[in-house]
Amino acid sequence: MQPSLDSLHQILGADSLLTEADDLAQYGKDWTNQYTPSPMAIALPKTTEQVQAIVQWANEHSVSLVPSGGRTGLSGGAVANNGELVIALDKMNKIVGFESSTQQVQCQAGVITEQLQQFALDNNLYYPVDFASSGSSQIGGNIATNAGGIKVIRYGLTRDWVMSLTVVTGKGEILTLNSGLIKNATGYDLRHLFIGSEGTLGIITEATIKLTRQPTNLTVLMLAIPELDKVKELLNNFQKDIDLTAFEFFSEEAMQKVMSHHDLPRPVETEAPFYCLLEFDATSEDILEKALGCFEHGLENEYIFDGVMSQSQQQAEELWKYREYISETISSQKPYKNDIAVTPDKVSDFLQRVDAIVANEYPEFEVIWFGHIGDGNLHLNILAPDEMDYAEFTKACEKVNPLIFEVLKELGGSISAEHGVGLLKKPYLNYTRSEAEISYMKGIKAAFDPNNIMNPGKLF
Amino acid sequence: MQPSLDSLHQILGADSLLTEADDLAQYGKDWTNQYTPSPMAIALPKTTEQVQAIVQWANEHSVSLVPSGGRTGLSGGAVANNGELVIALDKMNKIVGFESSTQQVQCQAGVITEQLQQFALDNNLYYPVDFASSGSSQIGGNIATNAGGIKVIRYGLTRDWVMSLTVVTGKGEILTLNSGLIKNATGYDLRHLFIGSEGTLGIITEATIKLTRQPTNLTVLMLAIPELDKVKELLNNFQKDIDLTAFEFFSEEAMQKVMSHHDLPRPVETEAPFYCLLEFDATSEDILEKALGCFEHGLENEYIFDGVMSQSQQQAEELWKYREYISETISSQKPYKNDIAVTPDKVSDFLQRVDAIVANEYPEFEVIWFGHIGDGNLHLNILAPDEMDYAEFTKACEKVNPLIFEVLKELGGSISAEHGVGLLKKPYLNYTRSEAEISYMKGIKAAFDPNNIMNPGKLF
Repeated sequence: MQPSLDSLHQILGADSLLTEADDLAQYGKDWTNQYTPSPMAIALPKTTEQVQAIVQWANEHSVSLVPSGGRTGLSGGAVANNGELVIALDKMNKIVGFESSTQQVQCQAGVITEQLQQFALDNNLYYPVDFASSGSSQIGGNIATNAGGIKVIRYGLTRDWVMSLTVVTGKGEILTLNSGLIKNATGYDLRHLFIGSEGTLGIITEATIKLTRQPTNLTVLMLAIPELDKVKELLNNFQKDIDLTAFEFFSEEAMQKVMSHHDLPRPVETEAPFYCLLEFDATSEDILEKALGCFEHGLENEYIFDGVMSQSQQQAEELWKYREYISETISSQKPYKNDIAVTPDKVSDFLQRVDAIVANEYPEFEVIWFGHIGDGNLHLNILAPDEMDYAEFTKACEKVNPLIFEVLKELGGSISAEHGVGLLKKPYLNYTRSEAEISYMKGIKAAFDPNNIMNPGKLF
Repeated sequence: MQPSLDSLHQILGADSLLTEADDLAQYGKDWTNQYTPSPMAIALPKTTEQVQAIVQWANEHSVSLVPSGGRTGLSGGAVANNGELVIALDKMNKIVGFESSTQQVQCQAGVITEQLQQFALDNNLYYPVDFASSGSSQIGGNIATNAGGIKVIRYGLTRDWVMSLTVVTGKGEILTLNSGLIKNATGYDLRHLFIGSEGTLGIITEATIKLTRQPTNLTVLMLAIPELDKVKELLNNFQKDIDLTAFEFFSEEAMQKVMSHHDLPRPVETEAPFYCLLEFDATSEDILEKALGCFEHGLENEYIFDGVMSQSQQQAEELWKYREYISETISSQKPYKNDIAVTPDKVSDFLQRVDAIVANEYPEFEVIWFGHIGDGNLHLNILAPDEMDYAEFTKACEKVNPLIFEVLKELGGSISAEHGVGLLKKPYLNYTRSEAEISYMKGIKAAFDPNNIMNPGKLF
């Protein structure tokens, strides 16, 4: 039976508790789309103390809570499909402090990624974690899934930029984890435990984020590659001399779709099975020369067919489009997505084995590969044949999943590189984490959330 | 009552279980020296499986275990003063794998830091975590305390270089945590939980460590500084343009002691209350010019009195000596050490307040400050007056500790920046971590080590 919401009204005020059907539908799901939202209500707290009061209320009334950021997740981590109360951080969207000498900025959890990026630029600094959903995703959600994106090869993951967290645990206690300290060797780092915990231990309400120096001359190299086996050599050669800020790849199939959908010319003359997009900060002539040297070495040794280097920021942006437009281009074909990772040295082996599996099981399915090959993160997109029923197609893909994940397991890979586990990947968690690990995770969860009210059913 | 060691003999072989008084004395303590070693025996396993068998044996017989690396710790984390069995990783000292394309190297936990640094150099790479004890400290121990050192400002802590861990938990289960993956969003990152856990959750037996590109032209600037208040400005100005690889400081008192003890000339003509040592990789003329520009700006604006820049690697090494020799120089005076941290913007305020406290409580005590000011990590050394009894001196210092830690707490600082908590800082843990945090830490410990056999009495 649903408890009365009267006391929640008192905690939040009338304007901050939503129960209209439209709101329930909107706040009850993320970008995953497979699940039917059915939350009890939507709470929009304005302070950490209000979040605490909600968690205490939920413990008293055995109500499950789903923390909700920008709801751009692709694994159903922010889905409320089981009568939960959604705690949306939308009203906690302020940047509340900035110390220029430490380059640390204090954000409420609901601050939008782009808002933080802009704040950094306004202060002649840079927040380097960037991805397609940065216009909607919130800092709290980014931290809860340890979001990655396109600059990881140079700047790391969200984890690497979090200097402090304020959280409300499942028990309803407020913790301040680290206080912006670079060095703090005083026991278990609970901050790192909350990063990537997908709202199952508590709710992140505030974070202190480190900023960094702006790049000055981002330069893009688009390369045509004869075979993926050669990418290892290519990556090694460039990384020996240059701090790459991005190292992306995509297939000729992806290239063709983007060119046709967006009416764009072929960016490099020579057609090839794969393309790599490299980005680096050409802070000196010396670095540009080194990059050209690597490029020539690749041409001579035939692990590069052809390539083009941007001569201006505008040209760099033009070249990025071929990579950035892929997701949107194929979205009309409702691709079945898998966000997976292996170590970069195993990418070629993995990709060939997955291609063989899909070709063998479903020769009529089209496969589009792209991703952050520099860090081993691949986005596998399987496209439904036009005539096929979508539910049937999804089911077929789910049948292939265990075959793919067996290969991943053998190679020590991850069934979720940067999208989290949520509901979608939960059935497959044991391909990446052992039974013993999962059991310890449950032990940790019990310590922080003994009544299992925090995002229950997600992760495990 | 002490259980029979027969079954341990069977697990390890006779040569790998030490019970001689000399061995017990040697393996029963670290560099902390305040504690009297009294272990039951010393086990020297050769494999992860042997470690597992020992942990299972210890659980059966309710024997406490103390994991032991290079025993260079300064907080008593590796002290066995209560009849424990020491598990020393000395025989697990091999580098067992290397993948050049990912720059990842697989080390057994007993690999010495310097051995890894040398391995990196031999492969034209670099392991950047470095500190005074790198000739003896082991990788496993470094990870268990999340060791920092002199290059943190540029390269981060040990945590930032650990790609995988193999551990045996207090329950006796072997876990492989992450497999070298850069992106792996599959639930709680237990790897990060073990980093800095000081052997209280389990024993680290193997680690995969990431290496990086070698610096090419490390250049040192030694600066004379009129007052510490100005260091913030100094740091900001250099960091705006340059990736500093080190930013150290020490006082004129430290300078005088080093010059006199080692018969060295004054490195910068002008005497000043404080000195900063900056290091950066001058990969291009451009960077050198920027550094000189920052230096001149400092002279003009009087936050730098004077300075000298190294013109060769040899000269850079000469300049480092003034900083590196401090610990050894003052060691004969048996300093009472405190390894503490605040955020870099609060260093000056903190230091002045501590100086005032010590001057007020014990005007006859000499205070030597030095440390990694770029990351806010200060080493406070209080020297005993010649005539004073050492036990009496220590007691006096311990009386000052709460006064200093109150200031630290107020400033959000840490009672242990990089030395860990162990036995020494345990009484003060609540100055940095809240009661609630400590209680969650205990909950986590109970999940991994329900019989409390792993390094009991350390940390909390």
